[in-house]
Amino acid sequence: MPHLTLEYSANLSDTLDPPALLAGINAELAASGHFAEPDIKSRATRLDDYLIGLHNNGRGFVHVRLAILSGRTPEVKKELSAAVLAALQAGVPAVDGMAIQLSAEIVDLDRPSYAKVVK
Amino acid sequence: MPHLTLEYSANLSDTLDPPALLAGINAELAASGHFAEPDIKSRATRLDDYLIGLHNNGRGFVHVRLAILSGRTPEVKKELSAAVLAALQAGVPAVDGMAIQLSAEIVDLDRPSYAKVVK
Amino acid sequence: MPHLTLEYSANLSDTLDPPALLAGINAELAASGHFAEPDIKSRATRLDDYLIGLHNNGRGFVHVRLAILSGRTPEVKKELSAAVLAALQAGVPAVDGMAIQLSAEIVDLDRPSYAKVVK
Repeated sequence: MPHLTLEYSANLSDTLDPPALLAGINAELAASGHFAEPDIKSRATRLDDYLIGLHNNGRGFVHVRLAILSGRTPEVKKELSAAVLAALQAGVPAVDGMAIQLSAEIVDLDRPSYAKVVK
Repeated sequence: MPHLTLEYSANLSDTLDPPALLAGINAELAASGHFAEPDIKSRATRLDDYLIGLHNNGRGFVHVRLAILSGRTPEVKKELSAAVLAALQAGVPAVDGMAIQLSAEIVDLDRPSYAKVVK
Repeated sequence: MPHLTLEYSANLSDTLDPPALLAGINAELAASGHFAEPDIKSRATRLDDYLIGLHNNGRGFVHVRLAILSGRTPEVKKELSAAVLAALQAGVPAVDGMAIQLSAEIVDLDRPSYAKVVK
């Protein structure tokens, strides 16, 4: 942990640079002091089939889900989601005529049952 | 929010119409009165590598995960999963000789740390 | 339920056999006695855009998320994540010069709102 998942609607493909976005987010997380750098495992997925409300005209979105081991305080969680959102605001270019929803959620990984090994 | 994720086993590709399914589900969610229409962000993903139990013969599945901000009552959650399941039952064609598992889960998004902006 | 999701970094594509991995994991879960065999719905996803910490050199990962209906004891959850991790250790080949992080998490599905039907 942590595990980070970034999803973006395919209509942002031409303007988004997913590797650069992940680099920006991971740098924020590494700098936060809450994680060991090699533990930050992030992925980006392009959503080809998506629907925003009842139509996609002039709409797009980028969503990040950050899963961390349970036990962090609400303050730390807010700090982390704010850091992720800041990286999205910096890294997702605006598109003329499009409202792009940027969002970040923090999820608790159940600590007692989380299992990990390095092979 | 909400964020909705629909996954389907690839052996349903010939009979499923993912955009139509998402349209049916989003229409239900918009009509529920619990969400602003443009906030409903849905995606469908085809699963090419899947395994149901010990073999896939005569088996398929469609699963929906609906993530909503925490604080809704158990009654509202049941109502929402029932609406999603109804849309699946209406929108997923039966296939001769195949048992198709349709399922819907509701997940709470941690409200205090959820962060969003429209760019 | 259960729903299992396996993700792997694309740099493991040459050495990983996702169908075999899912077969090994599902066999473990079926043998655990906690689930009906046809209910185990598993999928594997290759991650093409991923970033581990600040760079991917000599790094890879395989992560499994197992979602089960809420109400299991912490002991059962630990047993299940251990079984999944054992299947990963058995099924993910080591790669010279690469540190492969293997991890397993257990997630509760909200039981009251979980809806399912077989069509």
